[in-house]
Amino acid sequence: MNAVDRLIEKTLEKKNSAVIGLDPDIEKIPACYKAVKNQDSPFAAVAEAILNFNIDVIDSVAPLVPAIKPQMAFYEKYGSWGVRAFEKTVAYAKDKGLVVIEDAKRNDIGNTARAYADGHLGEVALLDGTTEPSFDADFLTVTPYLGSESLQPFVDNCVRYEKGIFVLVKTSNSSAGELQDAVAASGRTVSLSVADFVAEKAELCVGDYGYSSIGAVVGATYPEAAAVLRKAMPKSYFLVPGYGAQGGRADDVLLSFNQDGLGAVVNSSRGILYSHMSDSQRQICTRAEYIENVRAATATMRADIYDALKNYCSHMKY
Amino acid sequence: MNAVDRLIEKTLEKKNSAVIGLDPDIEKIPACYKAVKNQDSPFAAVAEAILNFNIDVIDSVAPLVPAIKPQMAFYEKYGSWGVRAFEKTVAYAKDKGLVVIEDAKRNDIGNTARAYADGHLGEVALLDGTTEPSFDADFLTVTPYLGSESLQPFVDNCVRYEKGIFVLVKTSNSSAGELQDAVAASGRTVSLSVADFVAEKAELCVGDYGYSSIGAVVGATYPEAAAVLRKAMPKSYFLVPGYGAQGGRADDVLLSFNQDGLGAVVNSSRGILYSHMSDSQRQICTRAEYIENVRAATATMRADIYDALKNYCSHMKY
Repeated sequence: MNAVDRLIEKTLEKKNSAVIGLDPDIEKIPACYKAVKNQDSPFAAVAEAILNFNIDVIDSVAPLVPAIKPQMAFYEKYGSWGVRAFEKTVAYAKDKGLVVIEDAKRNDIGNTARAYADGHLGEVALLDGTTEPSFDADFLTVTPYLGSESLQPFVDNCVRYEKGIFVLVKTSNSSAGELQDAVAASGRTVSLSVADFVAEKAELCVGDYGYSSIGAVVGATYPEAAAVLRKAMPKSYFLVPGYGAQGGRADDVLLSFNQDGLGAVVNSSRGILYSHMSDSQRQICTRAEYIENVRAATATMRADIYDALKNYCSHMKY
Repeated sequence: MNAVDRLIEKTLEKKNSAVIGLDPDIEKIPACYKAVKNQDSPFAAVAEAILNFNIDVIDSVAPLVPAIKPQMAFYEKYGSWGVRAFEKTVAYAKDKGLVVIEDAKRNDIGNTARAYADGHLGEVALLDGTTEPSFDADFLTVTPYLGSESLQPFVDNCVRYEKGIFVLVKTSNSSAGELQDAVAASGRTVSLSVADFVAEKAELCVGDYGYSSIGAVVGATYPEAAAVLRKAMPKSYFLVPGYGAQGGRADDVLLSFNQDGLGAVVNSSRGILYSHMSDSQRQICTRAEYIENVRAATATMRADIYDALKNYCSHMKY
């Protein structure tokens, strides 16, 4: 099944377009996850704590959300030990029926872009034969600074292996516009030029609901840009970061959606994981208390976005 | 010692500004490296073959070159097993006295950019205390699509931990200009806007030779751009990809250098590793034959660039 169809089916089933970012920060995760058995190395111990934490978060949110978005930076920080925790996290989430959006913002040129595309969304050569890669997520975020040539291998693999990408078009941070608002030779801004590429390639991966697995990252902190980009990429799914801790509200994300209530997923990471308990509460809470806290925060976010969409959409599908 | 000073000292010692990219492609590395002991998993076997290969390449080129540039995509392709091979490769190269340029083109926003910067160029928090990260390279390549806010954590860590970065300014591929030649609000192109940022931050990390550890990637395939960028970033070291397999020649890289013969390192990956023996020769060669082949190819590249620099530079320092 097309990657975007897997995401939409889970969205309809859970009646929810909010996804949870899994950004395990060892300085912020509750103390109760840090009593670990693995003493092979300090990195192995951190990786075990991260996995303990992720498993509880996934168990807590799995009944509520269509997908999780683990952020690779927080795993890679601990080298191969952290990357192993990432692999186990992806496998656990998929086992729980969740779609996985790998947020790694990868890209490079030529045969190197191909290596990233194969290693995250394709097949990899072994000494004998080929196999699925160990990063077997459904979607990957990719960066477009190197142009269309660099993006093509990811598009090719989306078509061939029923995977998806979210290309960075308009990011949620304060300095997003420095490069993304520059004007390209076409007379369009960089953001819109990338959007044009995404819209063109989106046609290659349209699923049963009329949406494409070739998607875009569009930050919640720039709602006016979202309206323009929604029109420029009518079939692409949007990954919308910036809700919650970064200041985006439910009203800010609406313009990333279509009138059927589909077309986007809204992510919150820190806003769910670390904002609803104080630092000192996270020092003393039990696992059961933390699980309930994350569940409640996720349910609140879901309701916030769902209610706003119900008001906004003329024919919401869920 | 400042990262760029470590690179310059090795350049002067070896009388060479050519560096070798370590891009292990399991479909191209000689068959003699594929007889491996580790049978834990197909990925473990590939990782062992990659490490066997890298160790011979490093041993072969260590007397000739100042640095190696392992490309993360080719390791990450094999998940945590590949990343472990990457870590061992970095450690082995440093043990042999080489500077290591990690080519991973990382970046993200806010606290995620900070996580990448800490995990590659800083210190990482453990369950108790902090330590050096397992990716303990000297330099990291970073991508600027997310603007100056996203680059700042990497700059901070270069200052604090005597590390270096090469920011993607002008890449060597065919579609580089699509975004990089767009015109920003300042009236400067995106490439030049990023260059302005690099030049400003470069002042924070100037070493004993007058160069900065805050550097730039400037592709050999755009020599006319290199001349402009050399002036825009007078103190920054350039990492110049695109020589050899991508079509760049010695004459094309000269404008990335200053008249002292410093200011840039030129990389070749496939041109050294896979171009000087045919596919069928790599099926039957011995390790000794391959080592000699890589050494000869590296010596030829060194001489090609060195001779061109000797002609070009008014007061070459080596």
